[in-house]
Amino acid sequence: MAKSAETEHPVKAFGWAAADSSGHLAPFHFSRRATGDDDVQFKVLYCGICHSDLHYIKNEWGFSQYPLVPGHEIVGEVTEVGKKVQKFKVGDKVGVGCMVGSCRSCERCDEDLENYCAKIIPTYSGNYSDGSLTYGGYSDIMVANEHFVVRIPEKMPLDSAAPLLCAGITTYSPLRHFGLDKPGMHIGIVGLGGLGHVAVKFAKAFGVKVTVISTSPSKKEEAIEHLGADSFLISKDEEQMQAAMGTMDGILDTVSAVHPLTPLLGLLKAHGKLIMVGAPEKPLELPVFSLMSGRKMMAGSGIGGMKETQEMIDFAAKHNISAEIEVIPIDYVNTAMDRLLKNDIKYRFVIDVANSIKH
Amino acid sequence: MAKSAETEHPVKAFGWAAADSSGHLAPFHFSRRATGDDDVQFKVLYCGICHSDLHYIKNEWGFSQYPLVPGHEIVGEVTEVGKKVQKFKVGDKVGVGCMVGSCRSCERCDEDLENYCAKIIPTYSGNYSDGSLTYGGYSDIMVANEHFVVRIPEKMPLDSAAPLLCAGITTYSPLRHFGLDKPGMHIGIVGLGGLGHVAVKFAKAFGVKVTVISTSPSKKEEAIEHLGADSFLISKDEEQMQAAMGTMDGILDTVSAVHPLTPLLGLLKAHGKLIMVGAPEKPLELPVFSLMSGRKMMAGSGIGGMKETQEMIDFAAKHNISAEIEVIPIDYVNTAMDRLLKNDIKYRFVIDVANSIKH
Repeated sequence: MAKSAETEHPVKAFGWAAADSSGHLAPFHFSRRATGDDDVQFKVLYCGICHSDLHYIKNEWGFSQYPLVPGHEIVGEVTEVGKKVQKFKVGDKVGVGCMVGSCRSCERCDEDLENYCAKIIPTYSGNYSDGSLTYGGYSDIMVANEHFVVRIPEKMPLDSAAPLLCAGITTYSPLRHFGLDKPGMHIGIVGLGGLGHVAVKFAKAFGVKVTVISTSPSKKEEAIEHLGADSFLISKDEEQMQAAMGTMDGILDTVSAVHPLTPLLGLLKAHGKLIMVGAPEKPLELPVFSLMSGRKMMAGSGIGGMKETQEMIDFAAKHNISAEIEVIPIDYVNTAMDRLLKNDIKYRFVIDVANSIKH
Repeated sequence: MAKSAETEHPVKAFGWAAADSSGHLAPFHFSRRATGDDDVQFKVLYCGICHSDLHYIKNEWGFSQYPLVPGHEIVGEVTEVGKKVQKFKVGDKVGVGCMVGSCRSCERCDEDLENYCAKIIPTYSGNYSDGSLTYGGYSDIMVANEHFVVRIPEKMPLDSAAPLLCAGITTYSPLRHFGLDKPGMHIGIVGLGGLGHVAVKFAKAFGVKVTVISTSPSKKEEAIEHLGADSFLISKDEEQMQAAMGTMDGILDTVSAVHPLTPLLGLLKAHGKLIMVGAPEKPLELPVFSLMSGRKMMAGSGIGGMKETQEMIDFAAKHNISAEIEVIPIDYVNTAMDRLLKNDIKYRFVIDVANSIKH
């Protein structure tokens, strides 16, 4: 008989889990592995709530495994390190993002792109090499191979740093990789949610001109006054969109709902790049003509490698970049999910795990 | 009253034109401008029939202007040059492709990418700066600014060189621009028609491994034995497609019918590139997940600039590359269009204009 979640590993753990695709989260006793030679064990302090968590707990992408402890924007304090661990010591502030493992030997891993390794192990609802389930950061304790742990710089606020581990790297990596980080460039950011608002901050720190493209006129003031965007386009206003045609070097599209691409491709200059980091459940309609006129390109991007994730965190610390958050206790998590579904959050919920989790 | 097509310009011309979107071509008297200071006038010898001609004469893209003399794969012999013309003299063999003008002063024109200039003047069914219609190569005589004329190298066969002016540059340019021309790479070519068969020849000349991807098993022998492809995939054979997943550095997709993209994106390695040069009338379904996993990209490409077109022709001459053609008299052109619609051609019709056109 297979061992229960509570007894399969030696270290007791406690968190909130979904038992099935109803998506309701409830207290859950489970266990984690003992700290291996290359492992870092840490007490979870904060964990961000990513929109993916919502898709996962409801099995909307079809590959969820239950019981499911969500959370891949995890910040904590090291409590134990394995004997071969070199980068961390007890007491260090650390973070774990969307992955806790990869093959470490393929071409992608060799070029520090573990995020594109075919054997990537997601932080939750994945499987370790022994087959056991991975559990995320809505929990009191975490353990991970040090390669998949990043250092949180001294002066960073720990709560608002947490979302950078997913939302931060998801937007930082493509802006860097696709060369949309050159001062003087004009970049569009589609969608001003958890990803979009961090993207605006990074893009401004790179020195590019930023236009936020949104369906919500109500976000204009916030985008410009508070987040520092240079301008704002209402995507449903044809006159505004027409006037901005052919003015952008690149667009980072963070929207995960189905939406039209033709107007976005129209905003690009020749050779412009439309980068998709949101993942709509259904295919989008791609007008090929719009790509051909001006040799434009579209690409997808998913999080980033571990080396780049550390680079992103260090860059964020240097430029005082973190997420705009609402800190909540863990027993508020089901309400938070309901609000997230209605986009009723500016811009990220972060669970104060250490101060609110009760066995 | 506006002048008639026959009298608006001083030089008499004769060709075959469609009078309306029925698409039926019939003999047509019109006129061309006198040879200007920067112009090259030439006797048309051969003109290829491109699939675009078929779309245009039937107004399937919605922007055709009638009377419409098709033809943008034009080869001829110079009969007169303007006094400022430097590159050509009477008797030279020359070609004109898909464009006869652009603004010559924008950023795109400055970087030799007249094909992406917003004021590009197409070879037919376009308008010169004075507003008069452009007429293509299904005609006895042609005149164009020397900047938009290429030299056909001495030893090239003039009939099978003609299709290179559209099909050739359309495939050569993206393979070069997107770096799919490195020896040892593995490239897929989707569709083995007018574009695809020339793409195979260029790709092999670049030293890359070529896999033809087609719905027609009957094309396998031809692709491998005759055109030199390394392998052949039947896109509807799931087992074959599955076995080839993640093996290609890039794919050039020449198909202009609506078709699924997911299987093609699946064939790409991480960072692979899917380049679209066919232009389906309707949008294609784009599965964003397939782009995100492996940071893949899609791009569009349309013909190429004049400098690169000359480079392509010179490269083709050096490597004995030309199109596989069926030479026809001009009065066969309506039959040829019917056969083209049924894909009943290997691989390009070329009209022997000089020997068959009768006033």
